[in-house]
Amino acid sequence: MSLSDTTPLNAAIAARQSSRQLAILPTSARNDALTAMHYALSVAKDEILAANAEDMQLAEAAVLAGSISPSLMKRLDLGKKGKYADMLNGILSVRDLEDPVGKIDRRTLLDEGLTLERISCPIGVLLIIFEARPEVIANIASLAIKSGNAAILKGGKESTKSFIAISRVLSAALETTLVPSASLQLLTTRDAIIPLLGLDTHIDLVVPRGSNDLVRHIKSHTQIPVLGHADGLCSAYLRPDYPAALATRIILDAKTSYPAACNSLETLLVDEACLLRDTGNFLPVASALLERGVELRCDAHVREFLTAALPSATGVKAADENRDFDTEFLDLTLAVKTIPSGASAGAALATAMEHINKHGSHHTDVILTLDEGIANGFLAGVDSAGVFWNTSSRLADGQRYGFGTEVGISTNKIHARGPVGLEGLTIYKWVVKGNGQVSEDYGEGEGKKPWLHRTLPVGEGSS
Amino acid sequence: MSLSDTTPLNAAIAARQSSRQLAILPTSARNDALTAMHYALSVAKDEILAANAEDMQLAEAAVLAGSISPSLMKRLDLGKKGKYADMLNGILSVRDLEDPVGKIDRRTLLDEGLTLERISCPIGVLLIIFEARPEVIANIASLAIKSGNAAILKGGKESTKSFIAISRVLSAALETTLVPSASLQLLTTRDAIIPLLGLDTHIDLVVPRGSNDLVRHIKSHTQIPVLGHADGLCSAYLRPDYPAALATRIILDAKTSYPAACNSLETLLVDEACLLRDTGNFLPVASALLERGVELRCDAHVREFLTAALPSATGVKAADENRDFDTEFLDLTLAVKTIPSGASAGAALATAMEHINKHGSHHTDVILTLDEGIANGFLAGVDSAGVFWNTSSRLADGQRYGFGTEVGISTNKIHARGPVGLEGLTIYKWVVKGNGQVSEDYGEGEGKKPWLHRTLPVGEGSS
Repeated sequence: MSLSDTTPLNAAIAARQSSRQLAILPTSARNDALTAMHYALSVAKDEILAANAEDMQLAEAAVLAGSISPSLMKRLDLGKKGKYADMLNGILSVRDLEDPVGKIDRRTLLDEGLTLERISCPIGVLLIIFEARPEVIANIASLAIKSGNAAILKGGKESTKSFIAISRVLSAALETTLVPSASLQLLTTRDAIIPLLGLDTHIDLVVPRGSNDLVRHIKSHTQIPVLGHADGLCSAYLRPDYPAALATRIILDAKTSYPAACNSLETLLVDEACLLRDTGNFLPVASALLERGVELRCDAHVREFLTAALPSATGVKAADENRDFDTEFLDLTLAVKTIPSGASAGAALATAMEHINKHGSHHTDVILTLDEGIANGFLAGVDSAGVFWNTSSRLADGQRYGFGTEVGISTNKIHARGPVGLEGLTIYKWVVKGNGQVSEDYGEGEGKKPWLHRTLPVGEGSS
Repeated sequence: MSLSDTTPLNAAIAARQSSRQLAILPTSARNDALTAMHYALSVAKDEILAANAEDMQLAEAAVLAGSISPSLMKRLDLGKKGKYADMLNGILSVRDLEDPVGKIDRRTLLDEGLTLERISCPIGVLLIIFEARPEVIANIASLAIKSGNAAILKGGKESTKSFIAISRVLSAALETTLVPSASLQLLTTRDAIIPLLGLDTHIDLVVPRGSNDLVRHIKSHTQIPVLGHADGLCSAYLRPDYPAALATRIILDAKTSYPAACNSLETLLVDEACLLRDTGNFLPVASALLERGVELRCDAHVREFLTAALPSATGVKAADENRDFDTEFLDLTLAVKTIPSGASAGAALATAMEHINKHGSHHTDVILTLDEGIANGFLAGVDSAGVFWNTSSRLADGQRYGFGTEVGISTNKIHARGPVGLEGLTIYKWVVKGNGQVSEDYGEGEGKKPWLHRTLPVGEGSS
């Protein structure tokens, strides 16, 4: 692993070269490297925590000076109870996942003795840009090597000393394995980002891990594909037929279980028929949200209803129509909008979907209804990575989906969408094996053969 | 379908709106639209050929004035025997392919009553930029609608009148179907390209169909993902053990069956042990190539060998080492380079792979050998969309792979690689169906439930 004295270009070249070697290593060699990384980080715990303590000291001064936030400093702290152990366990969890490389998912007999196979392989060189959390380096290094990719890592400046310490340890660990140590390249200076983002012939994919601003900045400064999401503006659409108790349970979870998460709820769309004092399902939902301290930014119709029904509630506010339905609050704030019931349930659904497709961020959106037809319309018509029926948007998560780990959540429309597991760090190649066949053998006309195009069973590993 | 008076932004907005409607149409509605398009184009043949004749007249004058090439004019001609019928048949072939939308390829039981499904869906809005061939409009319109995508089509200016005529007919045909006619947007002015390439929030994927220069220009002017390839620099590595007759057959096919194709051979790497006067396999290959009029741009070693062995051959030239191994000749020219045999076959293989990974375009590369171990090293280590063993690079083609149709050939490292069928115009969404489950139900600790993460059988259509 190279340290910060490497230029961006040299780092990228070294990563590319290493990626060629990594691509042909067997599963066991990549897994062994993760074992070695785990062991080395276990042994070097004191040394790394000492480096982290230096970062923490500088951060403390910066907090006092007001230049960084206390929450950033908290994220920096690798000494926090359980954090180091979690980092170490994460490496072993990734190691023990199924190998995403070398999987054949399509096999065709083109002609006798001529087969076509589609086999998964690493993408090549990843550029991972992340903010303060120093444990991310171990996580990302594990994911990259497990999937056979080289990675250039650019960490936040606040954790420079921790990064350098961790990277020295990982570098030394890789030296003892078949994985080239140059597979991991660490760059610490902020100046490196823009030149790296311009190296589109050397770098195949950018994975930003951090704030929306970071992702947005990166997306607008590179032609390299970026895997991630800038925004997580999730919405739920409450239909009048859905039981109030279940609606309350789901919406409370979606809004309050972790408001800063990208899969938390930001907008609630309520059918106007939900706004009934005694029999409607919205009032119990709103009461529970207000009780939990959620501020409701309501359109005129909802506000009028709530101020009449709950005159003493202080959390009912008027929504700014030009802003609040396009805002990811990441906080105990929820925008609430009425959907006119219209001529039919289908018409109301169309209005709700139009709002979501226009104002949402195509991350995860929810419908709450007992009507399967309406639900299916929503699941098909909402253009988001996750479309949920009668459950919380907070379930949009790689661990919860059962991927074992998560590279990130993508709102891209190509390659990988939604929570991305190791599979998102792979692509495929087409392998054709013959024994002298040529294109001019096939086609129509005298002496030409037809293609067989017979589907063959698929399986792991190359035949 | 809008004609050329639409602004790029309005075209993109209309396409996006239509894409929402298209996404929820059943297979039958999309297929019916293709039937209607086919019928309308059959009926309007005379009208369209008349418009095409006007384009041809202008083109004829332009050829005389030297401003366009005769081959471009030839591509423009829709009246050429069989071309119109091929265009019509192409629509029905696409219609009759399996629907790429709505396929569930992963299903997990997260908990009792809580399922996760990954289901294929359209990408959304495609921008298709193509050059003269007017029949491409029908082909691309079929592919887009079959896969549930809206498309903005930007054709070459030489075929404007043909495009307008075809698009009027398609537009009228779509008016009679459930597919919104605004799903296809036609723009004819060259000025439209740059503004369209900037509309990354409205357009999800750019598919350029045309010359390398066109693709390169587009890739460097947009942040929207581009599906395609700028270059097709394919190489073959000839090992000394491969029979001369088979090698000749494969290399002749790869170089001479269609030299202008992107999957044609441009570089031949020969192990130095192939360069033996009586027993080596290279001399028969070279003789056959020269006999077919192929110019061989040889490195010093190969040139020395060939001038001694074939003193009267006029096609043996010295390669310009700085250029010829990085050139896609698209012509009867082949660069030939010696690979030192080195200490072992593995060492020579490594040298050959290093050359290909550095100088090739990651399109399709071939090894010719009877040694399975060496072949497998090549198939794993060459970083290309297609890696072929003992067959011709010309097989890299969607029709030949059995896809039924081809959207293009991609050398991208994400999403779709190699020949791309309809599947490349789709992505997926994650559908979660529950009955009130929330994130706080799960995890470790008192009263929490574990995730089941039980794999369920997959199948077509939503459950």
